[in-house]
Amino acid sequence: MITDTIVKEFPEIGEIKIGILNIFIQHTSAALTINENADPTVRKDFETFINDLIPESYSKFIHNYEGPDDMPAHLKSSFFGSSVQIPISQGKLMLGTWQGVYLCEFRNFGGPRKLVLTAMGSS
Amino acid sequence: MITDTIVKEFPEIGEIKIGILNIFIQHTSAALTINENADPTVRKDFETFINDLIPESYSKFIHNYEGPDDMPAHLKSSFFGSSVQIPISQGKLMLGTWQGVYLCEFRNFGGPRKLVLTAMGSS
Amino acid sequence: MITDTIVKEFPEIGEIKIGILNIFIQHTSAALTINENADPTVRKDFETFINDLIPESYSKFIHNYEGPDDMPAHLKSSFFGSSVQIPISQGKLMLGTWQGVYLCEFRNFGGPRKLVLTAMGSS
Repeated sequence: MITDTIVKEFPEIGEIKIGILNIFIQHTSAALTINENADPTVRKDFETFINDLIPESYSKFIHNYEGPDDMPAHLKSSFFGSSVQIPISQGKLMLGTWQGVYLCEFRNFGGPRKLVLTAMGSS
Repeated sequence: MITDTIVKEFPEIGEIKIGILNIFIQHTSAALTINENADPTVRKDFETFINDLIPESYSKFIHNYEGPDDMPAHLKSSFFGSSVQIPISQGKLMLGTWQGVYLCEFRNFGGPRKLVLTAMGSS
Repeated sequence: MITDTIVKEFPEIGEIKIGILNIFIQHTSAALTINENADPTVRKDFETFINDLIPESYSKFIHNYEGPDDMPAHLKSSFFGSSVQIPISQGKLMLGTWQGVYLCEFRNFGGPRKLVLTAMGSS
């Protein structure tokens, strides 16, 4: 969950009266999505389910020289997506009560991940 | 299908010469997507297929105190996404002939859903 | 992979100092996604996996008068999405080293596909 980090590290959100925050991840084996921000079991269930749906053991993958977790990570990345867009009003993110931003790491040993944040609108 | 409602309730679209409409749903058990707007059997097949893919009967979910339809709804929400972006040209949405905006309700008894619409561009 | 075509055909990207490029596909049986741009086996594995996940042989589809590949194409389209957003900085797309834009054709005999490109930001 990276919502708090984003708000803290990107004070430019506070200067926008009406607009959009775009968050983009510069990687193909991780993703961004918006989901339930309160109960950590939701994130646990996400991981369990997606690992069953797109398993490392799927026998037809031919792109496997970076390890069995690589190709599943690419697929999961496109299932969830590389960016999220969040409306801004009066300097605040217009997330619903239960919404938070997930950074989904799909590699078993992922390194640091780079995000690009862009806020647009009228100030 | 909510395309007509959006166009009717958000006349600001008509003031944009070139730009983007962002539609955002403030919930984690419903989603927005763009798909076939003509034949209602497409929406029926969406529901049948996604319920088979992410079934309430999946035995490993631990987040289940809100009922068996809750965790599947969270997952479906992230599969389809919380927002759609549609180009605007000369005050009109640039949807393709067969495209419409779906509001996907994933709870068995969902309540009212709130959307945030943001139109940006040059007027 | 359409990254190079986009950059070449849409020189307006070069005029944006900070902003966002939105790419939108006006079809419901094709999609856009961002993924690994180097090794073509990734794209091959995408196709193999998604065809197994959403098979033409799924027996419950009722929307099938356009052929057995039509309804799977609609579903795949919403799984991957109709648009991508890419940050622009100093006239260049801020894609990660391994990221490229995929145009995913899901029909067996798809025709030409129309994209709408919109660049917004400060110049």
